[in-house]
Amino acid sequence: MFRHPVAVRYLEVDAQGVVFNMWYLGWFDDAMTAFLADSGLPYAELMTAGYDVMLVRSEIDWSSGVGFDDDVAVEVAVDRIGTTSFTLAFTVLRGETPTARGRTTYVVIALDDSGKQPVPDRLRAALEPRVVTS
Amino acid sequence: MFRHPVAVRYLEVDAQGVVFNMWYLGWFDDAMTAFLADSGLPYAELMTAGYDVMLVRSEIDWSSGVGFDDDVAVEVAVDRIGTTSFTLAFTVLRGETPTARGRTTYVVIALDDSGKQPVPDRLRAALEPRVVTS
Amino acid sequence: MFRHPVAVRYLEVDAQGVVFNMWYLGWFDDAMTAFLADSGLPYAELMTAGYDVMLVRSEIDWSSGVGFDDDVAVEVAVDRIGTTSFTLAFTVLRGETPTARGRTTYVVIALDDSGKQPVPDRLRAALEPRVVTS
Amino acid sequence: MFRHPVAVRYLEVDAQGVVFNMWYLGWFDDAMTAFLADSGLPYAELMTAGYDVMLVRSEIDWSSGVGFDDDVAVEVAVDRIGTTSFTLAFTVLRGETPTARGRTTYVVIALDDSGKQPVPDRLRAALEPRVVTS
Repeated sequence: MFRHPVAVRYLEVDAQGVVFNMWYLGWFDDAMTAFLADSGLPYAELMTAGYDVMLVRSEIDWSSGVGFDDDVAVEVAVDRIGTTSFTLAFTVLRGETPTARGRTTYVVIALDDSGKQPVPDRLRAALEPRVVTS
Repeated sequence: MFRHPVAVRYLEVDAQGVVFNMWYLGWFDDAMTAFLADSGLPYAELMTAGYDVMLVRSEIDWSSGVGFDDDVAVEVAVDRIGTTSFTLAFTVLRGETPTARGRTTYVVIALDDSGKQPVPDRLRAALEPRVVTS
Repeated sequence: MFRHPVAVRYLEVDAQGVVFNMWYLGWFDDAMTAFLADSGLPYAELMTAGYDVMLVRSEIDWSSGVGFDDDVAVEVAVDRIGTTSFTLAFTVLRGETPTARGRTTYVVIALDDSGKQPVPDRLRAALEPRVVTS
Repeated sequence: MFRHPVAVRYLEVDAQGVVFNMWYLGWFDDAMTAFLADSGLPYAELMTAGYDVMLVRSEIDWSSGVGFDDDVAVEVAVDRIGTTSFTLAFTVLRGETPTARGRTTYVVIALDDSGKQPVPDRLRAALEPRVVTS
């Protein structure tokens, strides 16, 4: 499974001594970009082709937090590919221990403001081999 | 319903011209603190009483984004009070138009590291009048 | 002197229990926007007139930190107005005690990518009454 | 010279299409941690030895901005070692082109709240080989 390393930033750790919740969405965004590139369709090429993606849903479940010195990574897989949207599944790992799971759903839109678009073939081809059945 | 005004920061707006997704979790955290204070139990008093809360789940659904000059507020209500946890429901408004909805679930923990605790009476009393049935 | 209140966000407080340094630049940006509006030239109108500002220098000196429950505000004054740039001076206050001082220098640019511009008359008129001699 | 790669985050890019100014201080903090580790004194060991560092001054001069797809790195050197403080010098590079320069001054403090401390020998030994004369 695709794994994206995370260097925890000191500034992400809050007064409770663990990474503040919102930064997970930042990590998922970083991991998504790296995942698309690794899947053969860098985000920049998606935009060049006239498309962008818009987040419409996110969910995160935490079982524990992570701290500044922890060895953290985010695993990424495809949860579902729909007609105009797709959902990624993320697992945050401290070492090999899952500490949080998340999902984000993106809608494909056209850069010319014409709104929602069917998932373009090239994106579908990049995502399909990475669909996991859980 | 309790309404917390949000002053959108220029730095929260991304290259798409709308507030980047993770900041909503920051807004919810701000709104939660204000909501607890307004409900009669400031977060600082909760800590003085030996408790803290830990986020264990968040979800957000966006119907549209908000920009730098938009008039934004977050409405907060209580979705559910459990034995050791409670869930808040948030509605992000641009003017009077909902643009996103979210929920966050917190577990009550003891500051002495003894773990999960039943929702203390004072917190329950603060939250109960604000439960909404949707 | 113009004073902009700051609601310290929980997420801005780091593991040392004080606001992480970078957020001061976020506060200065917020305060600058409020200061321009209060001076009679909202940022949006500056852009409508075809101008934008670009930060070219910042400096901050801290004498102490601020925490989550502190009562914080940022005072703003004009330090200097040059030909194509201007410098704002910021004082961060906890209650009435200064805890940090900063300065930021902005260059005026045209939105049509034609580069640096003389400080437009309207902006100069807005800033001049607020120059302080220290 | 020590060079720390920066993966620009989409969320760091603002509506002007360049990284918002405050993130540079986040990058400098990341680069400082990596620099100390590379110099033989990881931050965690400094804390284990009873010390911490506190930022007392920062300054940044920008000659241009950087965008999401830019290849960015931060070079770090020691500008000055004083009795109880030290100053690091940072150069932000896009490819091999400097786009910003910064300096941050840290005071060494004791973790037992006894205040400012002389720069400990081990830290001095780590920093001295990396002083640059500009």
